[in-house]
Amino acid sequence: MPELKEIAALVGGEWRGDGALEISGIQALHRAGPHDIAFVARGRADADVSALRAGALIVAADSSIAYANLVLVADPHLAFARLLAHFHPRRPFWQGIAASACVAATAEMGAGVSIGPCAFVGERSRVGAGSEIHSGAVIYHDVVIGRDCLIYANAVIRENVAIGDNVIIHPGAVIGADGFGFGRTAEGAAVKVPQVGRVIIGNGCEIGANTCIDRSTIEETVLEDNVKLDNLVQIGHNVHIGRDSAISAQTGISGSTHVGAQVIMGGQVGVADHIRIADGVMIAAKSGVTGTIKSRTIVAGIPHQEIGEWRKNMVLARNLAAMREKLRLLEKKIAKMEEK
Amino acid sequence: MPELKEIAALVGGEWRGDGALEISGIQALHRAGPHDIAFVARGRADADVSALRAGALIVAADSSIAYANLVLVADPHLAFARLLAHFHPRRPFWQGIAASACVAATAEMGAGVSIGPCAFVGERSRVGAGSEIHSGAVIYHDVVIGRDCLIYANAVIRENVAIGDNVIIHPGAVIGADGFGFGRTAEGAAVKVPQVGRVIIGNGCEIGANTCIDRSTIEETVLEDNVKLDNLVQIGHNVHIGRDSAISAQTGISGSTHVGAQVIMGGQVGVADHIRIADGVMIAAKSGVTGTIKSRTIVAGIPHQEIGEWRKNMVLARNLAAMREKLRLLEKKIAKMEEK
Amino acid sequence: MPELKEIAALVGGEWRGDGALEISGIQALHRAGPHDIAFVARGRADADVSALRAGALIVAADSSIAYANLVLVADPHLAFARLLAHFHPRRPFWQGIAASACVAATAEMGAGVSIGPCAFVGERSRVGAGSEIHSGAVIYHDVVIGRDCLIYANAVIRENVAIGDNVIIHPGAVIGADGFGFGRTAEGAAVKVPQVGRVIIGNGCEIGANTCIDRSTIEETVLEDNVKLDNLVQIGHNVHIGRDSAISAQTGISGSTHVGAQVIMGGQVGVADHIRIADGVMIAAKSGVTGTIKSRTIVAGIPHQEIGEWRKNMVLARNLAAMREKLRLLEKKIAKMEEK
Repeated sequence: MPELKEIAALVGGEWRGDGALEISGIQALHRAGPHDIAFVARGRADADVSALRAGALIVAADSSIAYANLVLVADPHLAFARLLAHFHPRRPFWQGIAASACVAATAEMGAGVSIGPCAFVGERSRVGAGSEIHSGAVIYHDVVIGRDCLIYANAVIRENVAIGDNVIIHPGAVIGADGFGFGRTAEGAAVKVPQVGRVIIGNGCEIGANTCIDRSTIEETVLEDNVKLDNLVQIGHNVHIGRDSAISAQTGISGSTHVGAQVIMGGQVGVADHIRIADGVMIAAKSGVTGTIKSRTIVAGIPHQEIGEWRKNMVLARNLAAMREKLRLLEKKIAKMEEK
Repeated sequence: MPELKEIAALVGGEWRGDGALEISGIQALHRAGPHDIAFVARGRADADVSALRAGALIVAADSSIAYANLVLVADPHLAFARLLAHFHPRRPFWQGIAASACVAATAEMGAGVSIGPCAFVGERSRVGAGSEIHSGAVIYHDVVIGRDCLIYANAVIRENVAIGDNVIIHPGAVIGADGFGFGRTAEGAAVKVPQVGRVIIGNGCEIGANTCIDRSTIEETVLEDNVKLDNLVQIGHNVHIGRDSAISAQTGISGSTHVGAQVIMGGQVGVADHIRIADGVMIAAKSGVTGTIKSRTIVAGIPHQEIGEWRKNMVLARNLAAMREKLRLLEKKIAKMEEK
Repeated sequence: MPELKEIAALVGGEWRGDGALEISGIQALHRAGPHDIAFVARGRADADVSALRAGALIVAADSSIAYANLVLVADPHLAFARLLAHFHPRRPFWQGIAASACVAATAEMGAGVSIGPCAFVGERSRVGAGSEIHSGAVIYHDVVIGRDCLIYANAVIRENVAIGDNVIIHPGAVIGADGFGFGRTAEGAAVKVPQVGRVIIGNGCEIGANTCIDRSTIEETVLEDNVKLDNLVQIGHNVHIGRDSAISAQTGISGSTHVGAQVIMGGQVGVADHIRIADGVMIAAKSGVTGTIKSRTIVAGIPHQEIGEWRKNMVLARNLAAMREKLRLLEKKIAKMEEK
């Protein structure tokens, strides 16, 4: 069991109190016992910790929280993430290549790759060293997957998709399905436009469960490094998403839109096609983004507005009855004046 | 073929007319023939039944509908459900454990469990008596599944998830994928927070197709007994949903939110994180719930309002042009008065 | 390599310039090289083509674009689709029936059917000639699939579903899961209504990745011929969709609603239950359609309005602060007048 001082070293922080205290695990604040460590988020510097039973707390270095045993760090949330990984090392799903997996003769497997039962890897596909492909995942032909990736059960990766290193693809995600492209005959019948482009996913990306990323019609749909997508997200064909952007559940980005780096979107956002979102933009949940956003700003609403404007209008929109009442009163007064 | 009087007994109702009429099936009102029974919903007590060909009708006990053969019950909808089950008994997907299923040596199977071809059950997982796991479903390690559950094809249940008795999980649903948790470095890079908590699903729950329920970061995501989720729903990490709540398709509940019992949500609702929804609340489709709802009420809108307020404001919002016109008129009149 | 004049013949167009120019492929405008052909969309008749390197351009017959080598057609987008198919013929996923596929003894396979590894086809199901069923797809019992269909990996088709010819079902789509139907006991407990109806899908339909189409309670959920559904769409039980309609990602149609022919819906639209949408209606992204739409019109908003009305109201809703300011000014002026 690591001691508090070892924990402090692990997260690059300083300890206060009993450096020899043995820490057996990390827990939520209100559940932590005498040998657990827990964390107090940076914004909660005023948290009441008097009733806690935790052995030690991780707090922000500039926090004024008083507690018997502390670890002081720049960012408690990141330290928490680090300790979760330390106390809960991931166990591999499967060892080696399962007998019931179907791996094409021309596929290339790196060292230490594991392929679960009933998974499929197609012709000429390459899986980098240390990557895991779980049961029922289907990797079509001519796919490239980097090192140390984690492809969960029943995910599907269509042909010609390229995936970087350290990518996590959650169960049921579909990468590289056909983009939604149709022409119309003069009579209005829908005619499919074949989708022969690719999807390219950078290093360190994470793709949520049942999320869909469509292949481009003829070019590439691109996620730069470290993009994080939540569950049930829809990424249209030919979309480009910049590095470190994070997109919450059930959001959809329409075709050919370019999203900058470090953009953050809430859930159920919709973004129109063929527009640009600047680096660092934040989009509130349920917004409908209908046009290009040129500078680092926060937006909300359908159609989107700068969030301060949106809040003002929202308050007014919820009090329209009062506004109409005032208007009626004025109408009456003026009518009376006109009579005179 | 059961007779009308037997049907009445089955649904705990009273019959009128020819109790010996043979009933061969249950049908939609306008399709029912002389040996079919159909139902008239409680709220349709004024339905015109003169043109129907149905052999018999199930109606509310206090209905004034006149028809040759009737079954009178307290709730025709529930009687309809009962008869559908009677006339359409579910047939098992597979008998026993398929040769191509992969069931770990340390997994425990209850009596009469059936596991379809190419399904997977991991180490130490337990499947209760009478449960069915269909083709391609993947049950990771250390999962507990109760009795008489129905896990449809290609559903995925991640490690350490616990599922009660009589639970139905529809195709493609993903239970226990990582919650969407990230920290940010000072430079803005996203850093994954490992998600090591669990999902616990009570007895009698139903999880729709391609719906996702994320595992908690460190605690539990919980569905109490008899919660019903439609398709493509997103349940964030650490969410808690009370018993008998029903959530329609494409709705999303953000992390750590607590939903009470018998809550009903329409489709495409979004609920913010870290809030509480009281028992019995009803939320209209497409609403955006941004804060705690303390009492049994009906809400609608983005952000949500009490539904009566929302309706009033909606009507006004759709007639803003008229309001502006009135305002202009007043401005003119006053300008004229000021001139004098 | 086909010559320009052959390309023109293929798309039913006329060529200008060097009819013997060899065309090796089709590319996006700005990427096309001296042996590629690219297309200029009809609405872009004023496009600046001076810097392009493309060997030839496909343009609308009435376009005034001047370029060395041209193919003139009625609809460049349709010609583009035709050439994409020509230059990128689809390669089959698998040849014949894989050893690890599980095909029931009573299932009937047409000529040239291919079934990928670990796919499942149930009792009495029929798969038409030339159809492909990819790895991990699960076709339950008593399903009918027509000719030349393409069922991608891990799609699921429940029992008694009927699918026409030339249908494409993308990965993870779920056809025929139970509709979301519940009764409530007097105490408020949810009681499942069994869903014993069917889904019927016409010829030429395309169903997006992870899209869900629920089976009807007792009748049929129907997609007429050539309906196109994007990813993550939800079609409720007993819905009927007319031919050539196209529905974008993350849209949901509630139960028993009837959608006409050639209806177009944007993404994240929600449509209420038991309503009718006339032929040719267009619904903007993120709209909430709450009632029947009787004539061919374009609507937007929540609740939906005719799009012109919606735009006017939206502009006003975004400028409520200005309206309130004017109101305040009038109030002051009138108060002053009254004082006198």
